[in-house]
Amino acid sequence: MEELLDIEHSKEEREDFAGYKISPTMIFFPKNESEVVRIVKYAYTHNIPIVPWGSGSSLTGATACKDCILVDLSKMDKILEINDVDWYVRVQPGVKLIDLYEAVESKGFFFPPDPASFFLCTVGGAISEGSGGMRGVKYGPFREWVLSLRVVLPTGEVVKAGEPLRKNRAGYDLTHLFVGSEGTLGIITEAWLRIIPKPRKKIYTVKVLLPDFSTVAENIIGIRKARILPEFSEYIDADVIRALNRNLNAGLEEPEGGMLLISIEEDQLQDLLKVLKGKVEVLEGDEAERLYSLRSQAAIAVKAETRTFYAEDIVVPISKLPEAIAKLNEIARKHNTKFYIISHIGDGNLHPNIVVDDEKEKEEIFNEIAKVAIDLGGSVTGEHGVGIQKAKMMSEQIKSHNGERVLDLMMEIKKMLDPKDIMNPDKYVELAYKFK
Amino acid sequence: MEELLDIEHSKEEREDFAGYKISPTMIFFPKNESEVVRIVKYAYTHNIPIVPWGSGSSLTGATACKDCILVDLSKMDKILEINDVDWYVRVQPGVKLIDLYEAVESKGFFFPPDPASFFLCTVGGAISEGSGGMRGVKYGPFREWVLSLRVVLPTGEVVKAGEPLRKNRAGYDLTHLFVGSEGTLGIITEAWLRIIPKPRKKIYTVKVLLPDFSTVAENIIGIRKARILPEFSEYIDADVIRALNRNLNAGLEEPEGGMLLISIEEDQLQDLLKVLKGKVEVLEGDEAERLYSLRSQAAIAVKAETRTFYAEDIVVPISKLPEAIAKLNEIARKHNTKFYIISHIGDGNLHPNIVVDDEKEKEEIFNEIAKVAIDLGGSVTGEHGVGIQKAKMMSEQIKSHNGERVLDLMMEIKKMLDPKDIMNPDKYVELAYKFK
Ligand SMILES: Cc1cc2nc3c(=O)[nH]c(=O)nc-3n(C[C@H](O)[C@H](O)[C@H](O)COP(=O)(O)OP(=O)(O)OC[C@H]3O[C@@H](n4cnc5c(N)ncnc54)[C@H](O)[C@@H]3O)c2cc1C
Ligand SMILES: Cc1cc2nc3c(=O)[nH]c(=O)nc-3n(C[C@H](O)[C@H](O)[C@H](O)COP(=O)(O)OP(=O)(O)OC[C@H]3O[C@@H](n4cnc5c(N)ncnc54)[C@H](O)[C@@H]3O)c2cc1C
Repeated sequence: MEELLDIEHSKEEREDFAGYKISPTMIFFPKNESEVVRIVKYAYTHNIPIVPWGSGSSLTGATACKDCILVDLSKMDKILEINDVDWYVRVQPGVKLIDLYEAVESKGFFFPPDPASFFLCTVGGAISEGSGGMRGVKYGPFREWVLSLRVVLPTGEVVKAGEPLRKNRAGYDLTHLFVGSEGTLGIITEAWLRIIPKPRKKIYTVKVLLPDFSTVAENIIGIRKARILPEFSEYIDADVIRALNRNLNAGLEEPEGGMLLISIEEDQLQDLLKVLKGKVEVLEGDEAERLYSLRSQAAIAVKAETRTFYAEDIVVPISKLPEAIAKLNEIARKHNTKFYIISHIGDGNLHPNIVVDDEKEKEEIFNEIAKVAIDLGGSVTGEHGVGIQKAKMMSEQIKSHNGERVLDLMMEIKKMLDPKDIMNPDKYVELAYKFK
Repeated sequence: MEELLDIEHSKEEREDFAGYKISPTMIFFPKNESEVVRIVKYAYTHNIPIVPWGSGSSLTGATACKDCILVDLSKMDKILEINDVDWYVRVQPGVKLIDLYEAVESKGFFFPPDPASFFLCTVGGAISEGSGGMRGVKYGPFREWVLSLRVVLPTGEVVKAGEPLRKNRAGYDLTHLFVGSEGTLGIITEAWLRIIPKPRKKIYTVKVLLPDFSTVAENIIGIRKARILPEFSEYIDADVIRALNRNLNAGLEEPEGGMLLISIEEDQLQDLLKVLKGKVEVLEGDEAERLYSLRSQAAIAVKAETRTFYAEDIVVPISKLPEAIAKLNEIARKHNTKFYIISHIGDGNLHPNIVVDDEKEKEEIFNEIAKVAIDLGGSVTGEHGVGIQKAKMMSEQIKSHNGERVLDLMMEIKKMLDPKDIMNPDKYVELAYKFK
């Protein structure tokens, strides 16, 4: 590896945010694309597994590896351009989302996708995970905001996918192959993201305390049937509320069905109030902000009182929320546990959190929950991705919904782009394929 | 072909909307997916070129073929489901866009992409062309509205790409490979499209008569810099206005710089009026509708007074509109012709129309215009696609912007999905690759 040692490097064991281990032979901190190219070419020539790293906040083991070269992109952290006519921001992959938000907002723009990890995670990681967040219900996940990417392919070749244009029909859509590819198809070295003007409309936040579990789904379905499109539509269940009260002194009421937080533009507020069931309150002053801040600390509060904490990330069609919630209840009862559900409920994305200690039971519960999503026509992952953790269930989902041939096609794409199988190997599509 | 003759069929020569010839050995009108599968399997086994047909409104020769099997999907025209909770519409490929609009609107929903051919073109064709329209400036083209597709692959295998969920991270994004694939990767037999509530906001339309050519770009750039997002932002030049007056008795003023039509939500109207330059009028009553109807008949008016009519479809970054317009003017002057520019100008999508008779000069002008787009960092096609017409210039664009390797990758995808090269062969990516 001599020939690479002029590039900033170190050698240490790492753990990602979820505790997966990374034992690299070397960690490189490239400062520019040509350093990335040199590293990748070296790995390609010598058949060494190579893994991109943003901030390690992935929850599915997407960066776990052994005897690999880890490419830490945190030094490529420049915002290269905010174009106020063409409405894009061009960035290096190591830019933190929080810095991106600040930069575009200071120019009167808005970049909607907002994973709760925004304060630490990177643009490259979030694109590769196809991340979502609270704004997904209105604005969609990362996928809908990526215009064009520069990518160092696993062979060391550099390509640009797409154009920084909203309209462009020249050729097959490669950009969206890289979005959500979890570092398995190449290393993103530059991204053009679409930005829009900062919204001007007045937003109201409504708190709904729910008498029971079935009212949760009733409300969400009522909102959809009334053709109401909120900005946010978040949910935490009663156990999460109790955890917030116990560990963060939240001082919240503790209704049996939990709490909905819905934000909405002024002109839809009255319609919204008409359909909501439960104890409804339109929030004044800072109370809305306080509750959203509690919402974003919900996982921390739950972690504070459980020894293990394993976040599921299923999506179900919104019309199937009643069945989904009933089935989750059944599973919890059967295993004598609680799920501390935290949810972007407005788009059917539920995070039941598994807190049992026993590894075998954890696995069982995990699979049972994923099965609920699959059976109801949903997905085993809405935003956290697949990595190692969800490969088996991804395989189940695709076999059940899409056809086995789809797993072949995905695997063929992997082979096409990564003929030597060095780019973040043995995960995601490749691993799901093994479960075929 | 005996074994297929229980499927509805005929044998006739056809011409598509732009005059490209189709001389098939047989035209089939499948009624369901399993008939499509039988036809494709037959073609696969016997190595016969097979071409999907929606309504033949494509402008680039995307359905042209000889001794091929033409699969006319017009009999698969059912709207299968409008889901008012999950907010999608599920359709067969032969549904006409106009029928789709009506069906979803009658349920309080809205499907934004609106190619001007909506009254005749099909969902399958529009997905395959990744079509855009006037609403693109706010809502984006078809690509942003396709959730999931059922596709009969060129081998006769059936897959479903994606899920009818806005959030789904299970596997590489195959759905967007098929969007804009111009019938070269398989036959779409079912589509899940995202729908949203019908907008409720009051919309105003503003007419701007422009003293000269440079004011056109000034206005659009001014709007972008003011962070204003219109619903529509359309442009026709002075020659188009004169053609409308002469051939459709439009009775429009004829300012040298042409006319902008901009529609905007109420709360942005005042800001818009502040930045506009030219003779500005906020329209009352039916006048807005009349002008948009004239706008959509613009091509017909131009055709009425020219012998040839060949629509270009370039996109330039909006910030480059001044250079683009200046260069188009130069080209027109050099060739002693007019371009009758019709434009979705709000997203930088210009349709200069070539009206010279001489084939060689037509070709020259065509290439010069495409070169303007390429040199300015734009695209040779915003919405009409590539087909035969733009394959050479697509090749130029990709070599210049994305890297030659991108042409290889696209070709490899084609080979992967269509190993016998029977699905709409010798066009688009395949043809662009030959120009490599
Ligand atoms: C507290 C917390 C809250 C979270 N909340 C959300 C949430 O609300 N929504 C959500 O979607 N996710 C959430 N996540 C998951 C995670 O944060 C996101 O997936 C995040 O986008 C990952 O970013 P990262 O920079 O940490 O990437 P990493 O974890 O470092 O990497 C993620 C994947 O991307 C690859 N990668 C990284 N950089 C590149 C690059 N430049 N080129 C190619 N591949 C690359 C890696 O190899 C890996 O496969 C949360 C995580 C935590 C810890
Ligand atoms: C008057 C007029 C105005 C137009 N305005 C616009 C405009 O504003 N914006 C715009 O984007 N385009 C416009 N177009 C171009 C054209 O209408 C669009 O591209 C349209 O979407 C094509 O639809 P179609 O059903 O006619 O498809 P066709 O022309 O029949 O086919 C188009 C392509 O799709 C393939 N295809 C068709 N059905 C399927 C299927 N089920 N599965 C797989 N492949 C399939 C075909 O093989 C072909 O490659 C216009 C055309 C005309 C004639």
